This record gives sequence, structure tokens and C-alpha cells, in this order.
Amino acid sequence: MSQHVLALCGGVGGAKLAAGLAAVLPPERLTIVINTGDDFEHVGLSVSPDIDTVVYTLSGLADEVRGWGVADESWQAIEQLGRLGEPDWFRLGDRDLAMHIARTRRLRAGETLSEITADLAKRLGIGPALVPMSDDPVRTKVETEDGLLDFQRYFVAEQCHPVARAIGFAGAREARPSPGFAAALARKDLGAVIVCPSNPYLSIDPLLSLPGVRQQLAELHVPRVAVSPIVGGQAIKGPTAKLMTELGASVDVVGVARHYQGLIDKLIVDEADRAEAPRVEALGIAVDAAPAIMRSQADRIALAKATLAAAGVAVEP
Amino acid sequence: MSQHVLALCGGVGGAKLAAGLAAVLPPERLTIVINTGDDFEHVGLSVSPDIDTVVYTLSGLADEVRGWGVADESWQAIEQLGRLGEPDWFRLGDRDLAMHIARTRRLRAGETLSEITADLAKRLGIGPALVPMSDDPVRTKVETEDGLLDFQRYFVAEQCHPVARAIGFAGAREARPSPGFAAALARKDLGAVIVCPSNPYLSIDPLLSLPGVRQQLAELHVPRVAVSPIVGGQAIKGPTAKLMTELGASVDVVGVARHYQGLIDKLIVDEADRAEAPRVEALGIAVDAAPAIMRSQADRIALAKATLAAAGVAVEP
Repeated sequence: MSQHVLALCGGVGGAKLAAGLAAVLPPERLTIVINTGDDFEHVGLSVSPDIDTVVYTLSGLADEVRGWGVADESWQAIEQLGRLGEPDWFRLGDRDLAMHIARTRRLRAGETLSEITADLAKRLGIGPALVPMSDDPVRTKVETEDGLLDFQRYFVAEQCHPVARAIGFAGAREARPSPGFAAALARKDLGAVIVCPSNPYLSIDPLLSLPGVRQQLAELHVPRVAVSPIVGGQAIKGPTAKLMTELGASVDVVGVARHYQGLIDKLIVDEADRAEAPRVEALGIAVDAAPAIMRSQADRIALAKATLAAAGVAVEP
Repeated sequence: MSQHVLALCGGVGGAKLAAGLAAVLPPERLTIVINTGDDFEHVGLSVSPDIDTVVYTLSGLADEVRGWGVADESWQAIEQLGRLGEPDWFRLGDRDLAMHIARTRRLRAGETLSEITADLAKRLGIGPALVPMSDDPVRTKVETEDGLLDFQRYFVAEQCHPVARAIGFAGAREARPSPGFAAALARKDLGAVIVCPSNPYLSIDPLLSLPGVRQQLAELHVPRVAVSPIVGGQAIKGPTAKLMTELGASVDVVGVARHYQGLIDKLIVDEADRAEAPRVEALGIAVDAAPAIMRSQADRIALAKATLAAAGVAVEP
């Protein structure tokens, strides 16, 4: 029985597991739904950072050393933009710019973000369906001690220094899940939902904030498996740990499990966190342990296989 | 007496003389009005090739060897745009892209092309006023044996191969000269009009096609001096000679003089064309001879000085 897998994902960490899933599942069996709460308009261009991270990671264009953007990147345009008085705090690379230029042109021409993302992914040789969480604008805002900040202002310009008090998703109440997201949730052959190891608050919550999504996920009768982005009490990458502390969560797999309580059946934790299993299980969430730090494509594939196994999804050898 | 100089100019050849004029006149005594008939929208960006050529030439950013665009240019964005299915026949360089991105953002924000051009030129350290011929869209079209072509399609994609029958300027009748152009034509201290050695049909005629401009120029009581873009029966650069032939003009300084008859008092021809002077003078146009091929900044300055001297404009030593 060929079951379909729906992966929910944000930026870097999520993209790595998505790449692993893409490597082990036939393309027609995988839908990857991507956070668009980080999207913003910059120097007049529509930038979708998480979509691009997934696209670059799955197409092999990503710069694995720097951890974001495209490999063999150059910075001529942004330097010249600075000379012309345009903001240059968000480092748009020359190769990366092409994505934003193409996306912006096509959005203005009336295509949806879903249509554009599907086509650009296909042109770069990506097999599985890449689906933005919504074609309507949802914008993550961080309420900080220094005031309400747009996400990229908080994340890139301020480097997450301001102390966060709360996170909101402007436009989410009026937004609809994208057609591809809604269709995947409703598939009769849906075999599992995988919550990738992205920041629960910044990358996954935007998806959950869309009308109906949280409830649909809660009521699904298929295995729902999350992979913890916290390993050994620390975030693998980015501001997750700092943010969890500021928002009053415990920075460990228990904090992650509590955040997803009622939405997932199982949490994959790193081997290092195996001892925490009873505290997670006490929340009604099963635990599997697997090496959760992905340094190589082999690591991604291994974690993808462990995650699919935890979800009971068969993978052809 | 400090007289003002109004220079009319198109792309490369015109920009070189404009740079010479900018080097010998105090900035407040020079207005350079630039053709916008070549402007077009490409991959969603507003591109103004002649404005950019003048900006790059006067700011020292121009690639003098290639003859267009910016020096130390790279091509990462356009190569990636090609992979993403966007047209890549118009070679937008990475540094050059910054200009189009900034211009496009600001046009969409409601600034005029005049305001944007003035500000970007200032940021790049350019002194004289750079003025687009109009803030309204005028688009040069070439009627060819292969049909009606947009200018950049004819010029870049088709490399001027189709045989031209006529040239038109869509939108010109409804367009107004830009405020800076109109103001320069009306200045009480106007001392001369210089028609730079740009293509008369493709670069200068768009300016003349704007309502009232041809008549105002015809009625001006100040010296009007053109510099011939034809030297020794050949165009210094570009498709001028081929185009003049196809449009039934003689490819020599007489053809240029005839085109500008009634609008100029004097034509600067290259030393090589001195023998043609009587035929030009027979049209009621005086002739000065000067080295008209500009290979260096010294050549530009020498030709600018000769042109201003021919116009009777004093230059401080």
C-alpha cells in the first residue's frame, strides 16, 4: 500500500529532513508544506525565505557551509543597492536574486505563490510537491521588549537580540490554507504527517495558525510524528532555545512535546535525549530515539527513514 | 556671463560627449536630457538603458572595453533567471541589476523617473542635472520587413538584422517633456543646445517627438550645435549607418545635417569629413571640424571644448 506523506516544514532544519524524505520516497508520495510567515517584501521584491531554503536544499543549490542561500554566491547587486541608498541589511545574493525577481514578476502577473513555487521547483529538478502553507499573506510578528517587530527585522537585522514576549501571525485569520495544503490534509491515502525539526514557534506555528488546520491535524487518524529541533537541551541551529526560554517553555524535548501536545502521536528525539522519554510519554506522546543532527545527506536519509518507520510508513528498498 | 548648456543625448556616443561636457562645465551650468524611448520592462523590472549608460559613464562605473554596462560586472543572476524560465536575452549584469531594482521599487512607490534619476545620479557623485526626456512612457518601435518590433527586441534580441522601414514613438503624442527638460528649454540664461553624437533616428528623434519640443528647438535664439555620429561615411558605433541606409538617408555628414535641418545652426564633423563642409553649408548649417572619435577621457574633453567653442559658450580655464 503506497501511502502519502505530508511533511510540515520551515527553514534550514526542516529543509534537511525534507531532503531526506525526498531521497527515500517516490516524488508522488510526498507533499512538503512550507512556512510563509517569514515572507516579506524587500527592495520591491517578494522574498520567501523558507520556500527558497527548501528549494535550494532539495535542488542541491544550497550553500551547506554558510547554512543559508545558494552556493557559489556573489554579492554584487546588494553592494550596489547599498550605494544607491537601498537597504542592504538583508543579504540578497546575486544568484538568489533571480528567485525573487522571477517570483515577483509572476505574482504581479497574477499567478499564485503555489503555482509559482511548483513551477520553479520543477525547473530546478525537484520531484515532490512543494507547497506554500497559504497563497494569502501571513506575516509573523514578534512582540518584544523593544516593541513589535516584523519577523525579518527581528531575525536578521536585530539577530534575535530583543527579548520576545509573544509571537503573532498577521493575516492568518483571513488566510486560507493553500489548495495543495488543504488537499494533502484531506487525502484518502494519507499515511502520515511529519513535523520537521523546524522552530515550533516561528516555523510550524504559522501553519497551525491557519483557519481549520490545527483542528484538522488534531482529528487526523494517521500517525503524526514530529522530530525534535532541540537536542541535549540546545537548539541545533538558530534562536529556538533563546526564544523558548523567553516564551516560558522548557528548553528540552519535553518543551517541544508540550508545544505539540494533542497534535502529534510520536516525537523523535536524539539519542542524547533518550532519558527524557518517560516525561514525554507522560504527555501521551510516544518517543523514538534516532540520531537527529543532520551533518550529511546520509544523516538526512537515515533520520528520514527512522521518522517514516516511526510513522509506520513503508519505504520501498 | 555664465550661460547654461542643454545637451540632448542618447546612449554610448552621446554619453561620452556628455562626460566631456561634465568635465569642462561647472555642474550647475549643464543639463543633460536623456532619451527614454529605449526604456522597457524586463523580468518585471523597469530598465532605462540610455539613462543608465549616461549614469555609468559620468560616474566612472561604465565598462569602457565592453562598451555597455558596468565594469567588473558578473552575470550570476541572469544565468539563474534563465534556469528559472525567465528570458535571458537581455544581459542584465549583477551590479547593473541594482539600478533596475532600485528604480522599479521607487517608481512603484510613486516617485517620478525624473526624481529617481536625479537622486541616483547624485548618490553616484554626478554633478550636472541628468534629466529623462519625459516622465511619461514613450516606447520606440521599429517597423521592419519582419513586422513591428519593440526597440530592445530589434536592437538586442534581433541585433538590428531586420530591415527597418520606419521608426515610431508610441505614447509620444500624449507624453509631456519632463519638468527638467521643459525648464531647461525655457531658461533665460540658456546659452547653447548641444545635440550629442547619438543615433539621430533612435536616440534623438524620441526627444524631438515630444509635443512642442521640435518647435521650441526650431525657434530658440541660441546656438544649436550637433556633433555628427557619422565619421568618414561610417557610424562610430552601433546600427546608425545600416539604419540610415534603410531609411533612405545618405550615410554621411550630409545625411545627418539634412536630418537636423531647421533645428541646428552648426554641425561638428570629424576632420576626415572636412571636405563635405560645402554640402552641409548649402543646407544653411555651418560646419566646424574637430576630432570626433572619443577613445579616451582626453578625447571627450577636447571634443566638448570644441563643441562649446563652436557654440560660443565660454568655459572657465
